Parts: sequence; C-alpha cells; structure tokens
Amino acid sequence: MAEQPELTIQGWGPPGTRVAHVADGSLELTPDAAIKRTLPKAARKHLARELGWTPRSTPPVPVESIELAPSRLPVPVRAELVTLLGVENVRDDRESRLRRTGGKSYLDLLRRRSGDATDAPDAVLTPADTAQTAALLELCSRHGVVVVPFGGGTSVVGGLSGTDVDDRPVVVVDLARMAGVVSVDVPSSLVTAGPGMRGPALEDALAEHDLTLGHLPQSWEFATLGGYAATRSAGQASTGVGRFDDLVEGLTLATPTGVLEVGHAPASAAGPDLLGLAVGSEGTLGVITEVTLRVRPRPRTEGYEGWSFRSWAAGLAALQRLARHDLLPDVVRLSDPDETRANLVLAGGAGARALRGALRGRGHGSGCLLVVGWQGLPTIVRARQRAASSLLREDGGKRAGTRVGEAWERHRFEGPYLRDRLLDLGLLVETLETAATWSALPTVYDAARRALRESLSTPGTQPLVMTHLSHGYATGASLYLTVLADRDDDLPIQQWLTAKRAATDAVLAAGGTLTHHHAVGADHRPWLDREIGTLGVDVLRAVKATLDPAGICNPGVLLPS
Amino acid sequence: MAEQPELTIQGWGPPGTRVAHVADGSLELTPDAAIKRTLPKAARKHLARELGWTPRSTPPVPVESIELAPSRLPVPVRAELVTLLGVENVRDDRESRLRRTGGKSYLDLLRRRSGDATDAPDAVLTPADTAQTAALLELCSRHGVVVVPFGGGTSVVGGLSGTDVDDRPVVVVDLARMAGVVSVDVPSSLVTAGPGMRGPALEDALAEHDLTLGHLPQSWEFATLGGYAATRSAGQASTGVGRFDDLVEGLTLATPTGVLEVGHAPASAAGPDLLGLAVGSEGTLGVITEVTLRVRPRPRTEGYEGWSFRSWAAGLAALQRLARHDLLPDVVRLSDPDETRANLVLAGGAGARALRGALRGRGHGSGCLLVVGWQGLPTIVRARQRAASSLLREDGGKRAGTRVGEAWERHRFEGPYLRDRLLDLGLLVETLETAATWSALPTVYDAARRALRESLSTPGTQPLVMTHLSHGYATGASLYLTVLADRDDDLPIQQWLTAKRAATDAVLAAGGTLTHHHAVGADHRPWLDREIGTLGVDVLRAVKATLDPAGICNPGVLLPS
Repeated sequence: MAEQPELTIQGWGPPGTRVAHVADGSLELTPDAAIKRTLPKAARKHLARELGWTPRSTPPVPVESIELAPSRLPVPVRAELVTLLGVENVRDDRESRLRRTGGKSYLDLLRRRSGDATDAPDAVLTPADTAQTAALLELCSRHGVVVVPFGGGTSVVGGLSGTDVDDRPVVVVDLARMAGVVSVDVPSSLVTAGPGMRGPALEDALAEHDLTLGHLPQSWEFATLGGYAATRSAGQASTGVGRFDDLVEGLTLATPTGVLEVGHAPASAAGPDLLGLAVGSEGTLGVITEVTLRVRPRPRTEGYEGWSFRSWAAGLAALQRLARHDLLPDVVRLSDPDETRANLVLAGGAGARALRGALRGRGHGSGCLLVVGWQGLPTIVRARQRAASSLLREDGGKRAGTRVGEAWERHRFEGPYLRDRLLDLGLLVETLETAATWSALPTVYDAARRALRESLSTPGTQPLVMTHLSHGYATGASLYLTVLADRDDDLPIQQWLTAKRAATDAVLAAGGTLTHHHAVGADHRPWLDREIGTLGVDVLRAVKATLDPAGICNPGVLLPS
Repeated sequence: MAEQPELTIQGWGPPGTRVAHVADGSLELTPDAAIKRTLPKAARKHLARELGWTPRSTPPVPVESIELAPSRLPVPVRAELVTLLGVENVRDDRESRLRRTGGKSYLDLLRRRSGDATDAPDAVLTPADTAQTAALLELCSRHGVVVVPFGGGTSVVGGLSGTDVDDRPVVVVDLARMAGVVSVDVPSSLVTAGPGMRGPALEDALAEHDLTLGHLPQSWEFATLGGYAATRSAGQASTGVGRFDDLVEGLTLATPTGVLEVGHAPASAAGPDLLGLAVGSEGTLGVITEVTLRVRPRPRTEGYEGWSFRSWAAGLAALQRLARHDLLPDVVRLSDPDETRANLVLAGGAGARALRGALRGRGHGSGCLLVVGWQGLPTIVRARQRAASSLLREDGGKRAGTRVGEAWERHRFEGPYLRDRLLDLGLLVETLETAATWSALPTVYDAARRALRESLSTPGTQPLVMTHLSHGYATGASLYLTVLADRDDDLPIQQWLTAKRAATDAVLAAGGTLTHHHAVGADHRPWLDREIGTLGVDVLRAVKATLDPAGICNPGVLLPS
C-alpha cells in the first residue's frame, strides 16, 4: 500500500492546504486582510454585486475545539476485533476518528467548522483483505455494530453519515490497506485492484502498461475505486470514457452473510444483472473489497478547445445534435450564461478580459462557453472533431480557441479548494446535479434555478446559481449546479436544507433524476421512493435483508428510514 | 396492432415455410428424392464425409397427430379471466395452445416433431395493456395459476418451458396485443413501444423518423422487444450498436405485487440498478408491458467486406488488437477453420469456388474468414475503416472483397430455416454460445470443442463443430458454436443433453460465461449457481419472493429448482 494523503478534517485538500491557500497563518491576519488575500478584488466585487453579500471572516473553530464523545464500542467487541485484525488495525484515537467523520458536503463542512462531530465513528478498522472484511462484517452483525465503509471520504451527499435509528455503535471500515493492483490483463484491457486505491496511484500503475482508466471526477486526488463503484461516479471525461458503472466489469462484495462475486467480462445473459445491483449500493449491502475495471490504451492525442454560443438554448440544441449523431467529444462542458460570466470574472487576468471582449464582439456577450476535449487515435480524433465542428458551426457555435479549454483543464480539480476559501468569507457554497433527457432538460434547468432562487433570496440578497451541462449521452445529459449565497449565520444548515428540498422537488417534478453521479447518501434518501417507486424500494429492502439481515451496513443512507 | 405472422408449430418460419423449403408436398416424394431436393449434392457429400452420417428421411409427424391434453384451467378461474379480458382474449383451442407450446430449441423441435406437446399451456391470454396484465397476474397469483410470458416464441434455451414443480395449471400471456409504438422522442433518441412488437414493425415505424434500432439477432423476423429485454439479447451488429441491455433505457414490469417502472434516461446514480434486475429476468418476476429504447439516426453509409487469416489464433489476435483500440467494426464475425470450410462448401456456386482458390493461393486454405460491417457517417466510417484495415493487415489479414460480406448479409436470417431441413435428414443440429475475456477465449474455444467432440463421437461418426466469434468488446468476445452430428434415432434427447452438459461444464471450467445472449431458460438453470454463486441465487430468490410471492411467474426457468 502506497501512502496516500488524507483530507483535512474541516475542508478539502491534504493537511496544510488551508494554510497555503488562505494565508500563512491566516488567523494572525486581521479579518479584513484575510479576506483580501483570499479572493481577488474583481471577484469579490462581482460576487458582492450578484449576491448582495458582505464579505466577512467566518473561520472554522480550531480543530482542537471539535467536541468528540468517547468511543461507544463495547470492550469485548473491540477485543474480538483486535484478535481478528491486529491491534494496529482497530483504532479509536481522536485523530483517526475525526478524520473519518462524515464526508465533504456543505452540511458536513458546516458541522466540522462549527466544532460538531456528533456523527463520528466509535472506531476505525482497516482489514487487509476480503476474508478479514467478511469476518468483521459477520462479527459486527452478530454484535449489532454498524459498519460504514470509508474510501476517500469525499461524499457530498452524506454517504458516510453513520446514523442509525437504533443508535448502535458505529465502526468505519477504512479501505486504505486494500489499495493495490491485484492483476493486470493487458490483452483483455482489464485491471483488478483493491477498493482503497485512488485515481493517481492507479494511473501510475497503469502507465507502466501504456494503459489508463481515464475516470476523472473533481474528487480524483482523494476518492477511491471502491467509492466510485459504490456511488455510480461519473468523471469529467465520462462522455467519452463512460461512467464508472460502465467501467466496472466485476467486483467482490463482502457481506454479513458471505462473499458475493459479481460480473463476468465481457458480458453475460445469465439472468438479472447482480453487478448492477452491487454498484450503487452505497455500502448498504456490504463492503466492496475488489474491483475489476475496463481500461484502455493511453490516448495518443488529447486536446481541449473552447466554443461560444449566443444562448443556453442554442448551446443545448447544438450538443443535442452532436449526441444524436454519436459525435459528442470525450469531454463536454457547456456553461450557462451565469456560470460563463462568473468564470470569466473570477479567472481575472488579461486572457479572460480579452475573451470577454471577443465574445461581446460576436454578439455572445451574454452567451455560453463550451469546453470540449478530444482523446484517442489521431486519425479518428481528427475525423470526429471535423464532423463535430462542422455541426457546431451550423448551429451557431464559434470557436473560442484552445486557451479556454486548456485553462479549464489546468484548474479542473480546484473547485473544492476554492469552496473552503469562500466558506471562510460568510458564503453558502454547495453543488447539486441531475440528468434528464434532451427533451426535458430545458424544463429541469428552469425548475431547479427557480426553486433555488426563490428559496435563497431575502430582501437585499439573492443567490448566484451557475450551471453547466456535462456528461452527454445520446438520450440526454447531466446538469451540474453551483450555488453561492449570503450565508444565514444563525441557521446555516436550515437555510440549505430548505433550498435543497425545494430544488429536489422541482427537479423530480420536471422529470430529472434524483442524482446523476453524487449518489443518494443521507441527503437524497427521502426522495428515493419518488425515483424508483415504493415497490422498487421494497425490492432493495429484500436484497438487503438477504445480505445484511441485522441491518448493520451503512443504515443511514440510500433506503428511506 | 399489425398482423404479425406466427411461427409454424414444428419448426421455423411462418406456416407454409416447410412446404416451400423441403418440397411441394414432400411427403409424396420418395425419401430419396426429398433428400436430394433438400440439400445440394456437394453439401450432402461434405457432411456425410465429416460426420460419418447417412442421409435419411426423418420427417415430423403430421401436426394433426400431436397429442394435446385437455386444458386444466379451472372453470371459475377461466370465467374470472374472461370477465377481465373479454372472451376473445382467453383462448384454449388446440391451435392457440400448440402455437404457444415451448420455443425453438433443438429439444423443443424434437418434441414437437415426435408429436409430444406435454408442455402445452392450458390457455392463452392476450391482455391489452399494463393494467390488464397486472390484474391477471394478481388473479393468477391468487388462484395458483402459472404464467409464462410469450413474445415471438423463439427461445432456444427452454425459456417457455412452463414446468412447475407443483404441477399447477399454466397460462401463456401472449404479448401480441401490446405491439405498437407508444411514443417517439426524436430529440432524445428514445422510442417507447409495446413488448409484443417485433423488429421489422419497429424498424418500419422508426424509418418514418429517419431512425433505427439496429438490433438484428437471427430471430429478428419473429422475436419481440419484450423477449429481447427479458433475455438480454444480442444482435449481429451488437458490437457497434450495443447489446439489447445497452439499448433498453426503461421498462414497465407488471408483477403479481404491483407495477414496477424502472430506468431513468439518460442515466442515474440513485442506488442499485433496478432496470438491470428486470432485464434478463426471463419472466420470473412478472411480465414486461412496455419498453423504452435508445435509437439512432439511420446510418448514412453501410458496407460489408471479407478478410482472411492464416489461422484462428491469428484472427483472434487481430481482433483483440482492434478491440483494445476501440476500432472494432459494427459487425464482426470471425469463422474458425471448420466453419469457414463448411460455409464455402455449403454455399456452392462459382463465387465460393473462386474464393476457396484464392484462399489456398495466399496460404489461408485452412484458415479463417472474417466478415466485418461498417455503419454510420461516411467520414467517420472511412477513418475507422482505414485505421482498422491497417491494423488487420499488420496482423496478417488479407482482404477477401465485399462479396463475402454481402453474401453473409443476404443470408443472415437463414440459419433456422436450414436447420429444419437438416432435421428432416436424420441430423442433430443445435447451437450454443458463450463469451470470455480475450485472454480466456482460446482455452474456452478448445474446451467447448473437445467436450462436444468427445461426447458426440461414436465408432464411425463424429460431430462437426463450427464456431464463430461475434460481438466483440474491449475486454473479450462471444463464441457461437453450431453442432451437426448423426442423430441417435432412439435416444435423440438424451444424446444432446449429454453433449450439452459436457460442453457447459467445460466452458464454465475454462472461464466462459454460461450464456452470452441466449439466456438461462430451463436448459442452463442447473448451472446458474456456478455462474453467480449460491448467495447470488439467494439474492434473486429474495427479489422474486417480493414481487411474486406465490411463485407463479415462469417457474420453470432461470432459478435452479
């Protein structure tokens, strides 16, 4: 197992990130100075104007002040676990528990920044393999101990909430010791790896064989293969590479009842798809202990470029036509006018200014930027790019050069780092996502924005809702919304829960899906029966009852309580 | 509902086909004359030499001689069904029942040809919609009546066996009245249709919108959309178009417990994949009453061509390289030396003779023919074809012109018609299929052939096992085997069951899947636990218990008894 950096307890990035990003010793600066160093002046002005927000310093409490209750893991159970796993793999020290408390949603960060760790696990277990994981699940099932699998800890939907109606003790199963490549089958383009492995380590290992997985969500630096599988992750190049559920060819799921091995590459017609049942199960059926993934040769060429459109509707129509003809680029990201404008202002610099001028000059001043990326064999990429460009031009698109695309590519993982800085300044910052058919997409877009704006506006303030389309399919696409608003300092959690409820109701009513790639977690579970029907929920409960009869596997997520 | 021709009771094709194919009034010919008109001389000689088989006339019994027991459907249940569906939709006449008895496997045909219809249903129901289907399932569940869904009746794995350990009465739910297009969403490339619709009717309807589904299994003329979904079908262009399970974006499943609507285009991360659970359920969870499919613009260009390779190994290696680089053609069909030789001999004519000469000339005389097909936008097809051809040449492939490919395309649906003629001549004729990773493929191929040859050889006779690879994936491919052998006239069923058991055991031991696209049915169910594990079977049983607590839904298939 290679050493992999852990996320900081109260935000994104490895420990030390906050200091580097905010200011060296920000707490020693005056609040005003800290604000200035956090966000460029133009960005501050833009956001203040858009939101009616007054920049203010709202730092997190010191980590030492986070309250942590003593571990509730019964001593005899702890002893049994130590016998099974070894003493170094059953940890209940403060640091181990705090680092594996919840995920990285806005609500998670609000809690951690305010010093709340009531959702901390009672212990952290690090099994070595499938057999140990199956044994600990059987043990915990017998003793009524809740098990929450923990990969990178990057969930943004409360996937690691650990809440249990019966308030049983909770252990986290950290995947960190199952984080290596098990085998590579080059002719079959397959790699089998441990669930705790992260994207960068896997890509390094695959590069030796001239292979790549190519799955690049924003959480790429920290998220794990097991987490991707458990949540049906999608990445920035998923339009071309495929969603993670398309890339999983098999997996091993340790459950309290036994070990399930599912998937049979390349394909099978032997009954219902049990692999598809394990993927997306979010820890509620057991712990994924091995994944087999489809990989591909490293692309021989790769490039990004920008396009602009007069309007969101024009951009959507153009992408829909590409999708129909199977000409979507491998990376597709169409920003709506609000996101386009904000990105150009926040980016600052001469390049962004020049681009703003160019867009105004072609009548796209309040239009949309599209970033596309192409990967693969040069001759194929060239043919596809040429055909796609021709359709984009026919539909009113204008090329905006490669610098826009390259700038996006350079900054593609920075969002969550920036969020921490904005949280320091009194802002509400959260994202949500959905997907819909091309026909339903405009309605879903309008409905989500309207709900968020109505919920988050107060006299004198209003939210900024920035949206982009990513992940195109022949049949539709996903929408990713980023919300900024003046935080309600008294009831920040209630403020977001109200907005989230309104947005989710609106999205479902308009025909969007509950989640395209963030998963259900704790945050979306009240809506699951609206997505799959009560009979669908009954089916999932029946599967869970078979594999996890004591209901110890991540009971706080997915299935409605 | 358009009128759709039904398959003849004892073989393939619409009624009248047998007469046309065998001879006008074959029974009036002398056996010898009938044999001569059935199969060209060169083909007869080739098969006689390969198999040690003596051509003989083994015609089916007249349809009038098929024995059919009286319907066991209790009178009060029948009356309730008539009230629900109308008297014309509850049929128990001889013709209706015989036409919906079993499928079209070799074993099915042996039974029907010998006059055995002990597996006939007691009545045939034709519900109009989802509500009627759900109501009849509830009714049958209450009364303990087994329900077998029936689309085109083309199953080759005993998917319509209707056997029940409790020997309850059996009704067939014929999908024929749910056979129209419900809606077409052109921008989203989606069509929703009834499960009883067949390929030709759907393609006609889609052509009005310049769209196509492109799913072309050998059963295309008769099989239904519901059947495709229930069995995870694959078609001849599936390498490019995708398997049927890739094309299904949603479906409605009427179950005894209620109606399940699953799938949310374009994609969702809202928990485990319930659509994947309904697809491939083979009628064991209920009846599919609506399917939503991804369609595409009709290809602007389409072409087929042949290639040859010195050996099976060389052909496999070449296709594996194409697969890795995402350059597989839309249609891929690599015949092994036995199939290549038999096809050329059986085709007869000057073209085939010339091709045999050409292959000998280039040292591929005992080699393999590959048929490839390309579809799509001309510029993209050209680029892909050029890149693929270059790799094929590097790997020792030589072009064999377009006539080979076009001939294959012309005759693509003829296999099952030919089978009836061979059955008339004392032959055993059956197919089986599997899939494996590229690494495992050679071993699986050897194992399956060896098992069949060992099982079916007797002093003086041996089987001819012809294999082709079709359906290529990045990670592997499927193998399709056709077996011809001198039939054991005394114990023909036992002869095949023994061979099938040996072949299946060998395929699974070598790493192949139990079935790539024929489904499990009755024939493969004894091996399901080897494919998915006993815990996997338990999971499926739990799902079934939730949706079908009385176990009335197609109990004879999929799940081991």
